Amino acid sequence: MSTKHTMQDTDLFTRPAAITEVALAAALDGADLPEHLLEAARWSVLGGGKRLRPALVILSCEAVGGRTDHAVHAAVALELIHCFSLVHDDLPALDNDELRRGRPTLHIKAGEPMAILAGDLLISMAFQQLMDSPMDVATKCSLVSELAGGTSSMVIGQVYDTLGGLPDDLEPHQQLQLVHRNKTGALLRAACRMGAFCGMADAGWSQCLSEYGEAVGLMFQVVDDLLDVTQTTEHLGKAAGKDEEMGKITFPGLLGIEESRRVVMELEQQAIRALEPLGPAADPLRDLGRFMAIRTK
Amino acid sequence: MSTKHTMQDTDLFTRPAAITEVALAAALDGADLPEHLLEAARWSVLGGGKRLRPALVILSCEAVGGRTDHAVHAAVALELIHCFSLVHDDLPALDNDELRRGRPTLHIKAGEPMAILAGDLLISMAFQQLMDSPMDVATKCSLVSELAGGTSSMVIGQVYDTLGGLPDDLEPHQQLQLVHRNKTGALLRAACRMGAFCGMADAGWSQCLSEYGEAVGLMFQVVDDLLDVTQTTEHLGKAAGKDEEMGKITFPGLLGIEESRRVVMELEQQAIRALEPLGPAADPLRDLGRFMAIRTK
Repeated sequence: MSTKHTMQDTDLFTRPAAITEVALAAALDGADLPEHLLEAARWSVLGGGKRLRPALVILSCEAVGGRTDHAVHAAVALELIHCFSLVHDDLPALDNDELRRGRPTLHIKAGEPMAILAGDLLISMAFQQLMDSPMDVATKCSLVSELAGGTSSMVIGQVYDTLGGLPDDLEPHQQLQLVHRNKTGALLRAACRMGAFCGMADAGWSQCLSEYGEAVGLMFQVVDDLLDVTQTTEHLGKAAGKDEEMGKITFPGLLGIEESRRVVMELEQQAIRALEPLGPAADPLRDLGRFMAIRTK
Repeated sequence: MSTKHTMQDTDLFTRPAAITEVALAAALDGADLPEHLLEAARWSVLGGGKRLRPALVILSCEAVGGRTDHAVHAAVALELIHCFSLVHDDLPALDNDELRRGRPTLHIKAGEPMAILAGDLLISMAFQQLMDSPMDVATKCSLVSELAGGTSSMVIGQVYDTLGGLPDDLEPHQQLQLVHRNKTGALLRAACRMGAFCGMADAGWSQCLSEYGEAVGLMFQVVDDLLDVTQTTEHLGKAAGKDEEMGKITFPGLLGIEESRRVVMELEQQAIRALEPLGPAADPLRDLGRFMAIRTK
């Protein structure tokens, strides 16, 4: 383990999150939006959150020797996409959630029409962010492809999760993996790959970060499922026990709590292994992987 | 007037529409979507429609001497954005429309969750389309900027139209113009500009097409408002008289039918004038402008 970073090292999240927070606020305030739309966007985007995706972008960029400021627009873009997905997923027709990060969701705060439209706006703003980045045009195009692919996968995952339609010929645990590799994994993987692009990584290192992102992406969902059954609403800042209530398949529901914890450890190892060729510069990403896994211990 | 193209010349729409239709179907079918999501996307995208935005992209590209096949991805991208906006605008929380192009809207056909998610998907697919285009990376970046800006403006226009919040210091007709320059005009203008980029137009010609797009963009909405008061539901393929019923400000409501028709003629002239430097290659665009104006006569 790195001596510079430990699992208690809050700098892992706080430094990238602080950078992102400032850039997110600047992006929204600079967008020349009508007052109520700006307020809605600020409510849904600046309402806290771990900023995991921005952290993955920035730490991945730094892990390949890239400059932090080269990764900021991509970090903002990914967080805007993440926030749009929360706003739309919370809608009455989808998860019908009234609480998010301990506060009313946007459709409760500002009404359903605004929640639909503000969510839509965050998507186009995300792509505009990539165009505003200081990278060369070829890298910008790679970033757009990655963001578009990740967003499409996320929507596909949400469709599977909400409306079913999973391929019949898959085992239940394969179906569950298909849901979550799309719903959560794809965007986390995209975050790592976009960080690699911003750091001008070669194909080999991009592949390492891609595999790392794949592993932490799936791990994140298993951990999330575990937290849903083991923690309280107060602790989570959103409704707990909701998965079971909604009759959704989850990792603990399918594999049991202990086996799900074993899967987390396995994915953690997979993530750490993927980073091997990157040496000490990837220590923060290693620690982040460990931190994400330890949430459930 | 051009002798090659007349206002009756359906080739104005049918050729670009046919090219776009094939490319839209290929884009959806090639996207590796779950069956029900693909079906929803096909329902909302391939359900007919004039394909005005694709026609503007393709004819603008050709007007500056560009190759038709260079404009097809941008045409598809714009139509995907247009279709997403229809799907979301039709939702119960927004316009609550059950009929579109003479058929049930997507949320009626496939449910509200699917309509929200399929709409979201169409946005990310639109940006992916631009990345799949045969243009160089610099042009692709210009296309992404234009599409993102046009989409954001469209959402802002819809927010103004549905939720108000227009600047108090504007006259009613200025407010109405602000709504529609955003809601409809921005994307039509983006279509013309994107066509110019695909045709590798210089700044001067891009500016001509930009001004043309600005004029036909606003004209389109005035004509749409006029049709809403002068035609029947059967003729329109969607609910007529809805604007008045919803208490929306419209051009005929504000200016009267005759004055609105005069505005249409003025915008038509403005559009034609903007194309002057482009010579005969812009004849199809001239005819398209005339055709759009004549719908109300």
